[in-house]
Amino acid sequence: MTTQADTFSLARGFMAMATACGLKPNGALDMALITADVPCSAAGLFTTNRVKAAPVIYDQEILATNASAIRAVIVNAGNANACTGPQGAASCRAMAELTAERLGCRADQVLVLSTGVIGRQLDMTKVAQGIASLTGPTAHSGAGAAARAMMTTDTHPKVASRTITVAERTVTIAGMCKGAGMIHPNMATMLAIVTTDAQAHPAQLDRALRIAANRSFNRVSVDGDTSTNDTLLLLASGASGVPVSDTPLTDGLAFDDFTATLTDVCIDLAKQIARDGEGATRLVEITVSGALDEQQAHQVANAIARSPLVKTAIHGGDPNWGRILCAAGYSGAAIDPDRLALWFGAPEASIQLVAHGLPLDADLAAASALLRQDPVFITLDLGLGDARTTVWTCDFSKEYVEINAHYTT
Amino acid sequence: MTTQADTFSLARGFMAMATACGLKPNGALDMALITADVPCSAAGLFTTNRVKAAPVIYDQEILATNASAIRAVIVNAGNANACTGPQGAASCRAMAELTAERLGCRADQVLVLSTGVIGRQLDMTKVAQGIASLTGPTAHSGAGAAARAMMTTDTHPKVASRTITVAERTVTIAGMCKGAGMIHPNMATMLAIVTTDAQAHPAQLDRALRIAANRSFNRVSVDGDTSTNDTLLLLASGASGVPVSDTPLTDGLAFDDFTATLTDVCIDLAKQIARDGEGATRLVEITVSGALDEQQAHQVANAIARSPLVKTAIHGGDPNWGRILCAAGYSGAAIDPDRLALWFGAPEASIQLVAHGLPLDADLAAASALLRQDPVFITLDLGLGDARTTVWTCDFSKEYVEINAHYTT
Repeated sequence: MTTQADTFSLARGFMAMATACGLKPNGALDMALITADVPCSAAGLFTTNRVKAAPVIYDQEILATNASAIRAVIVNAGNANACTGPQGAASCRAMAELTAERLGCRADQVLVLSTGVIGRQLDMTKVAQGIASLTGPTAHSGAGAAARAMMTTDTHPKVASRTITVAERTVTIAGMCKGAGMIHPNMATMLAIVTTDAQAHPAQLDRALRIAANRSFNRVSVDGDTSTNDTLLLLASGASGVPVSDTPLTDGLAFDDFTATLTDVCIDLAKQIARDGEGATRLVEITVSGALDEQQAHQVANAIARSPLVKTAIHGGDPNWGRILCAAGYSGAAIDPDRLALWFGAPEASIQLVAHGLPLDADLAAASALLRQDPVFITLDLGLGDARTTVWTCDFSKEYVEINAHYTT
Repeated sequence: MTTQADTFSLARGFMAMATACGLKPNGALDMALITADVPCSAAGLFTTNRVKAAPVIYDQEILATNASAIRAVIVNAGNANACTGPQGAASCRAMAELTAERLGCRADQVLVLSTGVIGRQLDMTKVAQGIASLTGPTAHSGAGAAARAMMTTDTHPKVASRTITVAERTVTIAGMCKGAGMIHPNMATMLAIVTTDAQAHPAQLDRALRIAANRSFNRVSVDGDTSTNDTLLLLASGASGVPVSDTPLTDGLAFDDFTATLTDVCIDLAKQIARDGEGATRLVEITVSGALDEQQAHQVANAIARSPLVKTAIHGGDPNWGRILCAAGYSGAAIDPDRLALWFGAPEASIQLVAHGLPLDADLAAASALLRQDPVFITLDLGLGDARTTVWTCDFSKEYVEINAHYTT
């Protein structure tokens, strides 16, 4: 089957390879390598979990000192290299060193990503074989294969790209990610690598990435668990010859335009993660409007998106809207129950269920049908102000339990 | 089948009745009435949800003005009377008035509890029939029947009692509750009525109840959803003739002893709620020790107890301890990953899996077996101080999804 991922390319200046080295017991692709033709600018955002995996700590150190000269990202799935202590840190360094040797660059030019089971040491014999294979003739080439190699319980690879035309030149922003379990704002087990051929300084990338992440990956919730390994990387090769400009220039790409397109790519990837939450059958888009400020909107939307009761009701197509108001009520936000209004469905074809905190005489069969569509749209207006936000989650099915009851066994 | 509930009695001075008025479509008992022979002292704790059901608002008003002269508690299941506006408030008042008429007391001596679906108006014809039946010859008498009538998705009634002997006189503390879905600290859809025949002022009861709830009901989590209706009531008839004394008296019951026994009863009830969480197959007791203070211990324990990934792993007997450390890491508490130690099993027969944040070479088959026992014991030591706490939750099964995907349909 040909998927979007199979025909997907990274931005100019980057190449991707994948291989299977046996870290996934089923023999699937489990290592990926992204290389840059020239030293490139980079920025990264990492998990807020206090328990940080070895590669998270390692990458933060590399980017603190060497964000202008990154040459490669080496990725493994099947083992998170988290809770692995000094041995885990050494394994992570060895991954970078082995990759650097094969590529002929310095180890501090290589970033490392890991995902999978926590608390087991990496099998470095397999990893070394994998790195040798990735840089040899037997590697699967292409970003689609690399996106597949990152997967854990994901059901399909996730890629997205956009182009911007600036004075007849094209800038590309193209990324891949993995998600599935443990997905929650602040980057739950999510690995994402976004590439661009724009010319940009690490500080510009860092600024743009924070803005984009706050409107995308940090608005996704699958199960409320924030992982030890979450990483979002942005690499800029400069191969387009178009500089990102903080001040208007005739031949440059305005920072705001770059950031807006980067945000689009990140939202596309984030929605794919929510849609592919473990056991999920559909994407759920929750908008909270009428808030005093965006923080309040987010607090309410997040409580709704996390509620197992809301998510199971959506799964069953049960128009049990009381659970949504209930979640808003315990969100911690200073809402006024008598001002709440609630709609199911996309704006152009919605059904209003609640006004002034009270149920309307809505067609519940039609409301149920809206919960069975994909995506599901839920809009709650707080009636307090003009701020709004949108978050993405998924329904909660029995398969979530099935997948997670026997993950390591 | 005779259960503990069938032979259960409230404290002296109280009577309980139950009936079926049709609020539950299956014809099960759905209304209960607790009456006191004489006006009694009362205290209550209520949901922290900003969306409060009509009876919560009503009871708070009654207890603010009339906590020394309560005569009855009228309870219905099948409809929460939440998000029902002025009509819901009127229905709640009418429940109190109808009950008062039949009992020959004032309406402001009657407390009201409701549980069930949110956002539907109470069928007051059925409720009026129910109240007439409860005060007539056809009512089922007994606290066991009343405990059954409170149930929603509970699989069995929940009761607990303890006695204290003071100078050859016996004081009883006896309570009943319902739980099941939407259970989380701060009183998620939980209704509990605890009676005692001690003599006590409302202020004493209020103080004792806050202490007891903080060590029991506020340490239970089923799904992290805090409901609109949670209520914990404590009623004291004085029928034992033994006063609760704030200062040592020869013929009295010391406040601390009263509170300790009340706490025991509340912990017993709270554990029954956790054990009977929707779809639960076993009770999980999570202890966090070595914390800087109790608040920190609670923050970590609560994150573990809420984690769907931890709860599904327990369900499957999967010794995936990394998820426990991960939840501790994102709890928001300032833990030090390198100091964490983790055990499965009761203290006398435990297996240590983690020391100094790193996995030990533990017998994972034996660890898995400990996760399949009921109750499951998990102990995480933070290595920072001397404070500790214990919380209770349940495993997370496919049946939770089944129950909640079709609750109103």
